[in-house]
Amino acid sequence: MWRIAAIIGCLAIGTAPAFGQSKAAIQKLNDEWTAAFNKGDGAAVAATYAEDAYVLPPGADIVKGRAAIEAFWRGAVGQLGDARLTTVDVLPLSGTAAREIGTVTLKTKAQPPQEIVGKYVVVWCRIGRDWKLATDIWNTNK
Amino acid sequence: MWRIAAIIGCLAIGTAPAFGQSKAAIQKLNDEWTAAFNKGDGAAVAATYAEDAYVLPPGADIVKGRAAIEAFWRGAVGQLGDARLTTVDVLPLSGTAAREIGTVTLKTKAQPPQEIVGKYVVVWCRIGRDWKLATDIWNTNK
Repeated sequence: MWRIAAIIGCLAIGTAPAFGQSKAAIQKLNDEWTAAFNKGDGAAVAATYAEDAYVLPPGADIVKGRAAIEAFWRGAVGQLGDARLTTVDVLPLSGTAAREIGTVTLKTKAQPPQEIVGKYVVVWCRIGRDWKLATDIWNTNK
Repeated sequence: MWRIAAIIGCLAIGTAPAFGQSKAAIQKLNDEWTAAFNKGDGAAVAATYAEDAYVLPPGADIVKGRAAIEAFWRGAVGQLGDARLTTVDVLPLSGTAAREIGTVTLKTKAQPPQEIVGKYVVVWCRIGRDWKLATDIWNTNK
């Protein structure tokens, strides 16, 4: 069943799915994401995404696939840091998918550092034993 | 089963879910959304959302619930029109949920009109017999 899920994305197949991820579990995944980001490790950030994930950054085109996502985050970590993600709401969609809404703050590395405040939506999918970001989009509040 | 689905959001419960929405079916829902938007009918736009939906607009805080969503779109249709939504990718998550990625163009009503080009993510949920927007977030490309 894991393999099937990996092939077809995160569509739940078969018997009744259990409930999806909890808010605490997703917050923990986010803390891993920010740890990688704040170390400036674009490859580790990219590794939190599904192979066929989409990232939709403000001010840029759609980024598709882990290689392109890694290139994107490698660039971003040079300019931004001190990220904090806070999970606001989790909507379980099946045993293998959940929608998260959260808020984000980060700081520019240019001097003086400017704080950026935003919000995001992530669709998480279970791929094998791991939960991965399948879709990631955000914008700023101001 | 419809009632249960309506109560708990769009989590698939029970037997194996069928495949989710097709790209063509979601494009049709989008065409209904834009017809309402381009007529300036904020209430009709809001009616395409689930009661407990979230909208995450750039330059603003998170908007939650259909009443707040209606107020938001009533304001927006005064300033923007000529919207066109194009479905790029649909990821079925269960028989009652799907993630859509799309592109959007619209024009400001101020003279001279300016074109805005963006992209979005929508999580669609089946509520009873209808598919509704449960989560809607977008940003601009430039």
